[in-house]
This record gives sequence, C-alpha cells and structure tokens, in this order.
Amino acid sequence: MVRVEDHISVPRSDAANNLNWALIAHAKADQVHNRIPQGWILDEEILANQANDITHVPDTCGLLSKREIIITSSEAKELADQLAAKVYTSYEVTLAFCKRAAIAHQLTGCLSEIFFDKALEAAKGIDEQYVQTGKPLGPLHGLPVSLKDHHRVEGTAAAIGYASLAFQETKAGHESEMTKIMRHLGAVLYCKTSVPVGMMSGETYNHITGYTPNPFNRSLSSGGSSGGEGALLAMRGSPLGVGSDIGGSLRIPASFCGLYTLKPSFGRFPAYGGVESFPGQEALRNVNGPMSHSLAAIEMWSKAVIDTEPWREADPDCLPIPWREVKLPQKLCFGFVRDDGVLRPSPSVSRALKLVIEALEAAGHTVVQVDLPGRYNINLYKGDLYLRQGAKVIRENLEVAGEPWPRGYDHLELISAPDEPPARVSDLWQACMIRTRFAHQVGKLWSATKDITGTGREIDALITPCTAWPACKRYEFGHDDYLSVWSQLDYCATVIPVTKVDQQLDAVQDIVTLNEVEASVWQDYRVEDYANAPVAVQLVARRLHEEHLLAVTKVCDEALRKVA
Amino acid sequence: MVRVEDHISVPRSDAANNLNWALIAHAKADQVHNRIPQGWILDEEILANQANDITHVPDTCGLLSKREIIITSSEAKELADQLAAKVYTSYEVTLAFCKRAAIAHQLTGCLSEIFFDKALEAAKGIDEQYVQTGKPLGPLHGLPVSLKDHHRVEGTAAAIGYASLAFQETKAGHESEMTKIMRHLGAVLYCKTSVPVGMMSGETYNHITGYTPNPFNRSLSSGGSSGGEGALLAMRGSPLGVGSDIGGSLRIPASFCGLYTLKPSFGRFPAYGGVESFPGQEALRNVNGPMSHSLAAIEMWSKAVIDTEPWREADPDCLPIPWREVKLPQKLCFGFVRDDGVLRPSPSVSRALKLVIEALEAAGHTVVQVDLPGRYNINLYKGDLYLRQGAKVIRENLEVAGEPWPRGYDHLELISAPDEPPARVSDLWQACMIRTRFAHQVGKLWSATKDITGTGREIDALITPCTAWPACKRYEFGHDDYLSVWSQLDYCATVIPVTKVDQQLDAVQDIVTLNEVEASVWQDYRVEDYANAPVAVQLVARRLHEEHLLAVTKVCDEALRKVA
Repeated sequence: MVRVEDHISVPRSDAANNLNWALIAHAKADQVHNRIPQGWILDEEILANQANDITHVPDTCGLLSKREIIITSSEAKELADQLAAKVYTSYEVTLAFCKRAAIAHQLTGCLSEIFFDKALEAAKGIDEQYVQTGKPLGPLHGLPVSLKDHHRVEGTAAAIGYASLAFQETKAGHESEMTKIMRHLGAVLYCKTSVPVGMMSGETYNHITGYTPNPFNRSLSSGGSSGGEGALLAMRGSPLGVGSDIGGSLRIPASFCGLYTLKPSFGRFPAYGGVESFPGQEALRNVNGPMSHSLAAIEMWSKAVIDTEPWREADPDCLPIPWREVKLPQKLCFGFVRDDGVLRPSPSVSRALKLVIEALEAAGHTVVQVDLPGRYNINLYKGDLYLRQGAKVIRENLEVAGEPWPRGYDHLELISAPDEPPARVSDLWQACMIRTRFAHQVGKLWSATKDITGTGREIDALITPCTAWPACKRYEFGHDDYLSVWSQLDYCATVIPVTKVDQQLDAVQDIVTLNEVEASVWQDYRVEDYANAPVAVQLVARRLHEEHLLAVTKVCDEALRKVA
Repeated sequence: MVRVEDHISVPRSDAANNLNWALIAHAKADQVHNRIPQGWILDEEILANQANDITHVPDTCGLLSKREIIITSSEAKELADQLAAKVYTSYEVTLAFCKRAAIAHQLTGCLSEIFFDKALEAAKGIDEQYVQTGKPLGPLHGLPVSLKDHHRVEGTAAAIGYASLAFQETKAGHESEMTKIMRHLGAVLYCKTSVPVGMMSGETYNHITGYTPNPFNRSLSSGGSSGGEGALLAMRGSPLGVGSDIGGSLRIPASFCGLYTLKPSFGRFPAYGGVESFPGQEALRNVNGPMSHSLAAIEMWSKAVIDTEPWREADPDCLPIPWREVKLPQKLCFGFVRDDGVLRPSPSVSRALKLVIEALEAAGHTVVQVDLPGRYNINLYKGDLYLRQGAKVIRENLEVAGEPWPRGYDHLELISAPDEPPARVSDLWQACMIRTRFAHQVGKLWSATKDITGTGREIDALITPCTAWPACKRYEFGHDDYLSVWSQLDYCATVIPVTKVDQQLDAVQDIVTLNEVEASVWQDYRVEDYANAPVAVQLVARRLHEEHLLAVTKVCDEALRKVA
C-alpha cells in the first residue's frame, strides 16, 4: 500500500471523523492508487527514501527493463518516428510509460486519473491496425500522451482538484475536443495529471493528490497549475503532455521542471469541451499547450493539432490560421528584459539570461535591451477582470462537499465572502478597457523596436525571465508578473531550459534589496535550498505568431546547446 | 434657413423652455447646418417637395454642375482609378461630394458632423503633393470617404446621438485608428453620419439630427445604426462610407438603401479608439466595415485596410491575417435559408432570394436548401450578454443632459431602471457559455453541408434574407434575427442589392400567418407602402473568411447582373 499520507493533505483522522470532503478525497486517492497493478508498487524502502532528487528512481528501482528505460528516456519526436518506423510497438511503449508514470505517481502524486488498462488495449488495437493497413494513424501514431486533469476523458473525472467533483465521470460523447483530437492523431491516452484546486495556483496541491513536489528537488515545487504534468514529465513518466495556461500555468511547471513548452495565443489550439476554472469567463483566456523534453516535440504536436483545422468543428473560438512555414533570415535580433523593476530574478535566472544572450551572440545574432514591459501591474484590475467572480466559483465548488479553502487561497477566500456583493459587469468592462489600452501601447512599443534592431525588422523575440526563481520552495509561489503580462496581452511565449542552479555561481553574499517585494522574497535566500533545480528563460513573440516563435526559439536552443 | 424641424425631434418650444438637452440638440443641429456654405442651401420650394423618392433631387436641384453630377454618380473604385490617373483632381471630386452631401443632409438629416473646409484644404494638399511626387498617396488617393459618427475625427464630436456629447470635440492625437488609416490610405474626410441614440436601433433617429428617412421612399427607414451612411450613400453624397455592425448595423441600412456592405468577423478591420456603444463590452463585438454602391469598392477598401497590417500598431484586437487571394473553383454550391420559421420574409424579399438562386443556377452553380439556423433566439440571453449593463450606459449618457429616452427604447429604459440591480458577471458568464455552445453546434452543421453540396466541399456561402422587410416603415423596425445570429457567431456576411419592390409581383391577397410575430407584422401589409424600396439578400461565410466571401459574393452579383 502506498503511504498515501505523503501526498494527501487530508489527515486520515478527518476522514474517520466523517467529514464528507475528506472521505471523498481519500476514496478518490485510493481509487487512483488501486489502478496501479500490484507488481508496479514500489518497495516501502524506496518510498521512504528521503533524497531530494528522485528523478533517478525509475531507472534504479528495478521495475523497468533496460528496453523500457531506453524507451522512456527517449525524446517524443524521435519516439514518434520510431513508432512509425515499427522500431517499437505502441503496446510496449505504452506499457513502459504506464509503469514509469505509476512510479512517478507513487513518489509525487502527479496523477489525478489512471486508465492504463484502456491505454494498453488501445495501443494493442493501434498495433494491429498498423499491421493490417500499413498506414500510421497520424503524426502521434501510438505515442502515449498525458493530459492535464481539465481535459475530459470518458470514464474519468475532471475534478480540477475539487473533492466535490472527484467522482463525476465524463460520459460517452462528452470528451473534450482536445481529447478527441489526440486520439484522432494516433495518441494513446493513459493518465491525467494533478492540478491545484480550481487550477488557480502556481504550485500543485489539492486535498486528493496532496502536494506534488519537484522531482529534481522534493523540497521545491513542481509549479502549477500544470504541475502534475511537470512532475510526470520530469520523471520521464510521459513523453509529451497537454497542459493549459491562463497566467503562467504551462510556463511555471515547464520552468520549474526543466521542460519546453509553448503558451500559444488564444485561438490556435482547441479548448472546447474541457473544464474551465471559470466557465464562460472570456476576459483573460485559458489556452491549451504542449509540454515536453524537446522543442521538436513541441513543434510536432503544435503542427499536428493545427493541421486538423480545429476551427471547423472542434472549437468555434479557434482561428482559421493554418500552419505557417517560417523561413528565418540568417541574422536575428532578440530583445531582452533583464528584470521587471520590482523583483530582480534570483542569481541563477539572471545567469541563465546571460548564457542565452552570450550563446546567441556567439552564433552571430544580436541582442538588445528593450524598453518593453517586463511586467504590468495586473493586480490593479485582475479582480474586476475575472477573479472576483472566479473566487465565488471556487467557493461554490468547495462548499458542495464542505471542503476547506486550500492553503494560500486567502485572497480568493476573502473576496468571495458571502457578504461581498456580486461581481459587476460595469467593473468588468472597465477592466477590459484598461487591458486593451495596455495592449495598444505595447503594440506600438514592440513596433518601435525596429529602430534599434539593426535588421530593419522588429525584434524577432523577447527574452525575459520566466519566473524570478528557478523553482520556488513549497507554498512560497508568488510574483508571476513575468508571465501573466503576456497572458493579458495574448502574446505567445515559449519556455526553454537553460541550466541548473550552481552552488558556487549562484551564491549571493550581500543582498541589497530595492523594495518591499524584493525584501520579503530575498530575505531568506540560500542557494543550498535550490540545489539541482532547473533554470529556464521565456521567449515571447507577438500575438498569434507561434510558428515564428518556435523557429526563433529553435535558433536560441541550438545556440545554447552549441556552447553548453 | 433649413427647416430644421423636419429633422429634429425636439420642438423649438422645449428648447425655449430652457430644457438643457433640447437647447444642446438645437445648438448642435444649427452648428452642423451652419457649416453648409450659403450657396448650397436648397430653395424652400425644393425642401417642401413632398415626393417620397428624393434620390433625384441632387441631379435636378441646380446646385451641381454636369461634371459634378457625373463625378458623384461614379462608382468608388472607378473614381479611385480616375483620381490616380489624374482624370479628376481630388479637389473637384471632394467639392462635388461636399455639395451633394450638403443637399442630402438638408433632405434627410444624414450628417452628424460637417467639415467641408478642412476636406477641401486636405484635397488641395493631396493634389499639390501628387503633382510634386507623381506618386498617389495610397489606394484611396484623393477619394472622399464618409465616416459613421462613432469614428473620432479631430475637431468634431463623436456623440453617437447623445445631446450630452454633442459638443465634446476630439482633440489632436485622439483620432480613431480607422480615421488615421483612412487618411494614411489617401482618403479625404469631409463628414460624419447620423446614428440612432447610442447606435442601438435598426433605424436612425436622435434628438439632434431627427429622423433620417430612406431617400428612395421617405416614409420608410434608412435603417440603422449606420443609417446616416445609408441615406448619404443612397443620395450619392458619398462614394464610400465606413459604418459598424454589432447585430445588423451595416447590413440593415445597406439592405434598406440598395447598397453593398461587408460585415467582417471581429479582428479584421481596426476599431480601436472609436466610440463604442458600451466601452469594454466584449461578449458581442462591434465591427467596422465599408458601405458602397459596388462590390468592387467594398473589396478595394477591405484589401487596402488589411494591407496596412492593423494588428501591428492600430488595434491589438486585430488578427495577423494578411489579405488572402482567393481562387475559386469553377462550380460553386450555395446553401440557402428560405425563412427562419418565425417571420417569413415579405414577398419582395422572398422574390429576391428566388432571383439570386435562379441567377446562380443559370450560371452553372448549384443551390441547396440547408438546415442551418436562420435565426437563434438571442433574446433568451441577450440581456445577460450585454444589454442589461448596456442599457445602464445609455441611461447615464441620457441623464447627463436630462435627455428623455428616445421612442422605441422602452425595453432598455425598463431594464436599466434605477431599482434594477447591477448586471452581474455570473449571468454574463452563463450567457457566454450559451453563445459558445451554439457556435460549436453551428460549426458542425456547417461542416456537415459537405455531404449535400456535391462539390466535395462545404457550401461556399449561405444565402439568407437580410431583413424580413425591404425597408421598414418609420418606427416599426424589429426582428433582426436574420442578422444578429451571424453577429453572435462572428461569421462574416455581405449584403447585395437584388431588386426593388414591385407593385404587382409583391402584392399579397390572402395572408395566412403562422404565429404571433407574423400576425403582428403582417396584419397591415400593403405593397403600396413599400413603393420603390430596394430589396437585398445576405450572404454568409464562416468566421474570418472575408476574402472567400467577397469572391463568392462577386460570382453571385455577376450572375444577377447577367440575368437582370
């Protein structure tokens, strides 16, 4: 039996005291755990292992064969090619990832739903069909793909962290369009991944799956809200996952877990039929996007999804913009933002920025510091834009099962108090105007960069910190301004891993803080706390320029690998 | 002195009684009227002319020279070509349209702002520059373009029908992006056109400019909310106008006044910086679009605007979709909707549909009846989507000057009553969900038409009634479901004129009405009431398929002209 207390924040005693929400949460955790075959359960000894870095456990625990270790260590694009080339069957690849995901879940609570049996059956069917037809099903033929919990999959819940929704299973015919598209492209679906309550945190914890830590350092966060994906991918329990982002929810876990991601602009990838944090909320849009270990995988997934022309039937919000091939000029010019003037990034993040800039310059490109907003004080109007009513939605979902507010949701608890008046449309309209005016300003600023690039064009992308910290300590996430600014603007953004925290290079002697935010965050900085944490940067391009952004991100990534 | 009472719905006695709003309205009307040069004032005799068809007055009133009549009778694309070829100077073309617009205004109250002096000065400058550089300024070089009142133009108000805003002039640097783009493309701006109060009616009347009638039959409406444009263009007082549409506001006046228009999907043409009925309202989007006497003019304007790449600086809501050249297959298949099951169109409109279908079939295309929604009962959720808060905005703007609610705004007055609670975001979110689910359904239905077209493709466009009536009688507009459904879906739509009401063909003997809506509307149908009214149809294409829609509309238009 897994020591479920490691992951569940509900004490068994509460459940014993007949608290509805606690009973449900434990029952759900048990249900998920019980779907792991007995032979894949880790020894008590391994579970008791207190090492902070657990990424090596799958390779050493003895549950995976050598071939399974090779398979699960492969990069997704390569794996897709090998599946198409019949180097592997879908069944053996799926089995390998199911096993590894089971291991990951036991160590991190990263899975919200497990349906390995159906996956293996589907993989078998795919293999048989391939033998018969000789034609791969699609660009993701036979590839296991993990889905963030908000995607509806038949026969599983999409509880997004609420106990009250933990047993509400999606019925036939009601799967998310993204789920259907993944199947249509040939993917094998085998698990869904944990999220924070209502998908409203930069860390991943809820009363069912507990706290999902960072596999590179268990004292740190895996990020959120796609943190289950982050942890699962960091454990190599999935080759490719589909998460979502409304203010950083793809980028935070990608940054924390050493992964690549693309946060698209709204309207490229379908979201229809998935569970939203706040259904009907349209002022700040939630977008689906891929997370993986390589940019090639991100591009493969993105092109495959867009090639299905999701604007026709899948999602009326999708834009009829086909995949656009990009031919880049030889010499690029990147802009960069060193810090946002409020919270200077931690030394490792600043070092990552510097590494990227140096690598690009070494490859013959130029990098110019630009006067684009690294942040914008969204807090001035975020409440009116969506949070005031959103908090009420969270409260309703919690109250169904008498579930308490999760840690760190104090502000949301406050603004949704029963004596708070209903959120008003007049305030929302005001907030929308502020946001649009800001976007208008930024468009002009972005355009004006053509005067300083020396290429005759605007900057090809903007390089910025992703988060101020490589991965935050548990329950310490805050200051997502480097990320949310681009969500407000609906610009697209990628995250690429750059380095890892270095105990020498990233130590700080005397810290001079410039303001209260810095003072509060920097006061207990110790480089030792961040040992082994991956460090990333964010690249940003104009709204709906995903193909261009992926192409310049590739240039950046290759430049980095060349000097690494 | 113009008999201003013809146009102003405020009795002079009210103004004399010191009513603030009435004083302002009269002062504004006088201001606009006084900007017409003395020599262009029509004789009392002509103004007293009670003929219903006033479209011939400009040609016969003696104020225009033969050359000016030829110029103002020209189609905009041809005129643009002639300006570029130096057949005409911009000055003489501008002068001709200023004169004709002045005549139109005296007869219909179609202008909300007049700035002929600045226009003539600008035209002179354009001519001089052309002589010097030999290069036309842009695709609209020297062409006068009229703007609906909501576009901000320096030194004029953008009151959208409110007395309280009638003297709030736009300051330098605060023009709408569309205004700037028109200038950038070489257009000469010379007037703005009347709208109903808050742009919230299918007819055009307000306390300043009064009721703007239909020039083809003054007992009928010019449509709305771009009805000033409709009347001005019908009088040939403008070669090309820019209006807007949130539920029919381009299409109604185009239909009523025998004009072409394109209601784009949101995000093709910039709207930033213009006055909105309800600033910050984003659930149902207002879109700018062209109105003119030919499809060639509509296409010229559309391509010119998109070629400025408005997504870069002009409007952050514009999508980076460049102009897409369309190559149509030889044989097209159109779908058609005969009626919406609630209000069968008037005989002339049904006849227009039939004429279009026959013309297309004669040209070798096919037309199939489809099961797409001719309507959707938006009334079920329109209040929550935007109207409940919108009505409060109207109330606020009226109350500033103590202005009474205009005729026909009863429902808006009711739902914005001071004791009505504020519009709630929770209701808005619910309404957005309903709308998106509907759009999802329609996407699938549209897709499914490929099974019945015989071309292997979806229908190339959907032909539907535009309005149930060719032009409504004064203050009788209602039932905009044929139009608003496509606004809800954000599909693009064109309107093309087809025929005119025929006293024989469109007479009805025995009317059998199918429901209460029909009963109430049909009960006093007399074909004589609609004498000389233009009759149009609407063509609809998927969201953001403007270039395709224009191309197939051209096929339709040419087929019609061939059999006409």
